Amino acid sequence: MAASPQRPPVAVLLLVLLSCLTGGLSIPDPRLREALIRLEDSMQAGGKMELTDAEKRLDALLLKMKQEETARADFPPAMHFFKARDLIRASPIFSVLQKMPKGGALHVHDLSMVDVEWVVKNVTYRPHCYMCFTDNRSIRFIFSSQWPKPRPGCSPWALLEALRAKTKNATDLDNSIMNNLTLFTDQDPEVVYPSQDVVWDRFEQTFQALWGLVTYTPVFRDYFYRGLGQFYTDNVMYLEVRSLLPELYELDGSTHDKTFTLKSYQDVTEQFTANYPDFFGVRFISTVHRGVNMSVMTEVVEEAMKLQKDFPHIMAGFDMVGREENGRPLWYFREALSLPQERGINLPFFFHAGETDLEGTDVDQNLLDALLFNTSRIGHGFALLRHPVAKDLSRKSKVAVEVCPVSNQVMKLVKDLRNHPAAVLMLENHPLVISSDDPAAFGAVGLSYDFYEAFVGFGGIKSHLGSLKQLAMNSIRYSSLSPQHQEKALALWNTKWNKFVSEIAR
Amino acid sequence: MAASPQRPPVAVLLLVLLSCLTGGLSIPDPRLREALIRLEDSMQAGGKMELTDAEKRLDALLLKMKQEETARADFPPAMHFFKARDLIRASPIFSVLQKMPKGGALHVHDLSMVDVEWVVKNVTYRPHCYMCFTDNRSIRFIFSSQWPKPRPGCSPWALLEALRAKTKNATDLDNSIMNNLTLFTDQDPEVVYPSQDVVWDRFEQTFQALWGLVTYTPVFRDYFYRGLGQFYTDNVMYLEVRSLLPELYELDGSTHDKTFTLKSYQDVTEQFTANYPDFFGVRFISTVHRGVNMSVMTEVVEEAMKLQKDFPHIMAGFDMVGREENGRPLWYFREALSLPQERGINLPFFFHAGETDLEGTDVDQNLLDALLFNTSRIGHGFALLRHPVAKDLSRKSKVAVEVCPVSNQVMKLVKDLRNHPAAVLMLENHPLVISSDDPAAFGAVGLSYDFYEAFVGFGGIKSHLGSLKQLAMNSIRYSSLSPQHQEKALALWNTKWNKFVSEIAR
Repeated sequence: MAASPQRPPVAVLLLVLLSCLTGGLSIPDPRLREALIRLEDSMQAGGKMELTDAEKRLDALLLKMKQEETARADFPPAMHFFKARDLIRASPIFSVLQKMPKGGALHVHDLSMVDVEWVVKNVTYRPHCYMCFTDNRSIRFIFSSQWPKPRPGCSPWALLEALRAKTKNATDLDNSIMNNLTLFTDQDPEVVYPSQDVVWDRFEQTFQALWGLVTYTPVFRDYFYRGLGQFYTDNVMYLEVRSLLPELYELDGSTHDKTFTLKSYQDVTEQFTANYPDFFGVRFISTVHRGVNMSVMTEVVEEAMKLQKDFPHIMAGFDMVGREENGRPLWYFREALSLPQERGINLPFFFHAGETDLEGTDVDQNLLDALLFNTSRIGHGFALLRHPVAKDLSRKSKVAVEVCPVSNQVMKLVKDLRNHPAAVLMLENHPLVISSDDPAAFGAVGLSYDFYEAFVGFGGIKSHLGSLKQLAMNSIRYSSLSPQHQEKALALWNTKWNKFVSEIAR
Repeated sequence: MAASPQRPPVAVLLLVLLSCLTGGLSIPDPRLREALIRLEDSMQAGGKMELTDAEKRLDALLLKMKQEETARADFPPAMHFFKARDLIRASPIFSVLQKMPKGGALHVHDLSMVDVEWVVKNVTYRPHCYMCFTDNRSIRFIFSSQWPKPRPGCSPWALLEALRAKTKNATDLDNSIMNNLTLFTDQDPEVVYPSQDVVWDRFEQTFQALWGLVTYTPVFRDYFYRGLGQFYTDNVMYLEVRSLLPELYELDGSTHDKTFTLKSYQDVTEQFTANYPDFFGVRFISTVHRGVNMSVMTEVVEEAMKLQKDFPHIMAGFDMVGREENGRPLWYFREALSLPQERGINLPFFFHAGETDLEGTDVDQNLLDALLFNTSRIGHGFALLRHPVAKDLSRKSKVAVEVCPVSNQVMKLVKDLRNHPAAVLMLENHPLVISSDDPAAFGAVGLSYDFYEAFVGFGGIKSHLGSLKQLAMNSIRYSSLSPQHQEKALALWNTKWNKFVSEIAR
């Protein structure tokens, strides 16, 4: 998409050499200086993008807004997202970014797509909903036509309807449920989550708590439909959703297999696109927790190959989830991960890798290994700058990094988002896309908050409308869509983009 | 010193290509993986260093220590230095680093070389020492044979001797003086210094407070002698000291010019090296505060050219000090800075540049401008990763970055030192040296604390004894010493190094 970062400096050196040869200049030639500055600017994401007059007007407006925002004492990207969220909502840049057609969100987990308020106010108010309290102060749910069997490690079940009838203050109960379904808190996040261990533990608890609510078939469909709606409203036209493809259950306790889950996703997607024809679609990346053992991994890979064969239009590929540091490294699973190639079956990988700030550990080797296993993209890749060889391979083979700024901050990899390593990747126009990972767990919605942190935070003053355009286009170019579908998606995005620019610039 | 970071990946791609062509391998060839890992390892600082058997033993010991240290809950590089200092002191790695011959410290400011405890317990106990309290709650000092004239913005002068005689608790008074001479505090540094503005303001106040004490001729000489002693004891054999070359004064109020100051430095250095013949020496970089106007800058540059001509053996060159964001950018002073070249006079520059976390501002342009003015090294260069063109120029023209980890953390550019941008520079073996900037202001001594943060913090598990050796050798190779003196210094360092290795490995 742009020249490699190695090339321009050669031109630079030539310029420097020329200026030395022509000699006699005491002050460094201002034209040379200007050329170097422009060269550096042109190397960044979108640095070579030609802007129309309308785009230039919008760009000037954005620059002014950004300069004002950067001058604030309470600069949102420097603050924890939980404290910054209200400030971001009030920001004029955020309002532009919400309206902006952002293309696709390529790194989103299915069980954290929908705001937890809806889950509490809608889902938990449905009939037959039971709740229990776990020994480690979390909660679990189940929908059941009969009184459910006791759950180990949990208090006796309570029917929520009955509990609410007995409770004086239903709002308190709802808030307490809500707190268990998301990391977001009004308290000081540094105090509530003092370490990565604590925040990861609480994070996994929220999924456990959501599980019984969301894997109930009717809820599952509604939840996903609402999730698509929230991204669509946020002007995201395409999604690649990572999913454990949970076994769904019915009120009588019967369960379905993964195929049923994937089919349900397909149905809901078709229903959604029928209602909103300018939504481009969804593809799925089937996942497994990296804590499993080798035989489970082998099974899961076999299953994924079958799904990939049976649902080629909506299956994008395979990935592992869970904290890298707590699970086994990719290389440990090398035999299972080699099955597709051994059998000549296509199963694209979309590995999380380098979501760590430890350097030199086994886990830190995941980045290089993901590339050796021909991963199609890299999930997070937070540690990529620390791996010059992996970084170079990722750039040269156009393996895009899925950067999730809010997630990385909440999960305590970086405090001030101006210092996110993607600042460097953006300045070098490294292949990357912006995504939101688990918006509901972080108190975010859709994709705009992450675009805000990328554009205003680590994009610095230098990133401009061309950078935003590049990021949106990247999300289609680096998607799992076939080249023909990419062209179609780009054409659709382009129409939306031009409408957006002319409306805002007006 | 090592291959450019661009070259190895070509080899990598060849290997990848070869492995694809030979084909048939389902699991990525473990030999290829091993080769890529080794390639990445070899690209880091010291990655190509051949180690002797004794060095290998020491290296294994260091690795074990580092792994144990990294596993700690209270991992010092992740904490603020003020809280980490005691832990670092107790660390077995620190004890090795103290003994290690570190070569030179190339970025040290003269008025922050000596622990403030000595300043209080020795200097302020000398006769004729007066103190006053400023309106903004700092203190000022003067030595005078007569009662000194009132100082604007300050309380009436008090003779310290008399004040101490009247005070019930002299320790409290001494501690309160000490607190005004350093940023170091036992309180929570995040609370005491909530922002860069506050910490910079307090930082400049400490120098104002020290000024009247240290610029008194007899103290000046003792202070510097003690400063050399502290670095020498910390196994630093050579220094390049930045100095405003303050006008020194006598008890009768008479003052001397800058030449006298430089000569005093020369005398003390000669005296010190006579007493400690294995100390290699000191060179000076004359500085000016970047807040001055153009005519002052012109004067100062003229003066520096003269000093450079008159003291070629001890003058290294010229630099500007003070917070980059509060002063004028280098480009503003371009005419003054071009004088030496215009007149064909040699005045090497050692510019502070990129000591900022703002991106895209005028100040952020200092990095490129420093290089355009042919700076010999870059002071701090914290923002270098955000300037791919400047980074490439610095690498290709071997303009080393002076990395000062403790300083950058205390001055609030980075919180967790594992995330210091020099992590990337070290992994790419970018020309760099480790230095301590203003150890006394940060509660540090010599250079070992900064080596600790570099080696254990941003060096990660990967950096090893070869990296330390490289950093020490860099400090000679990138010094302002002539090639012949560099060879001499390297030979001396080498003897010390071999002695160190054999003693520790035993």
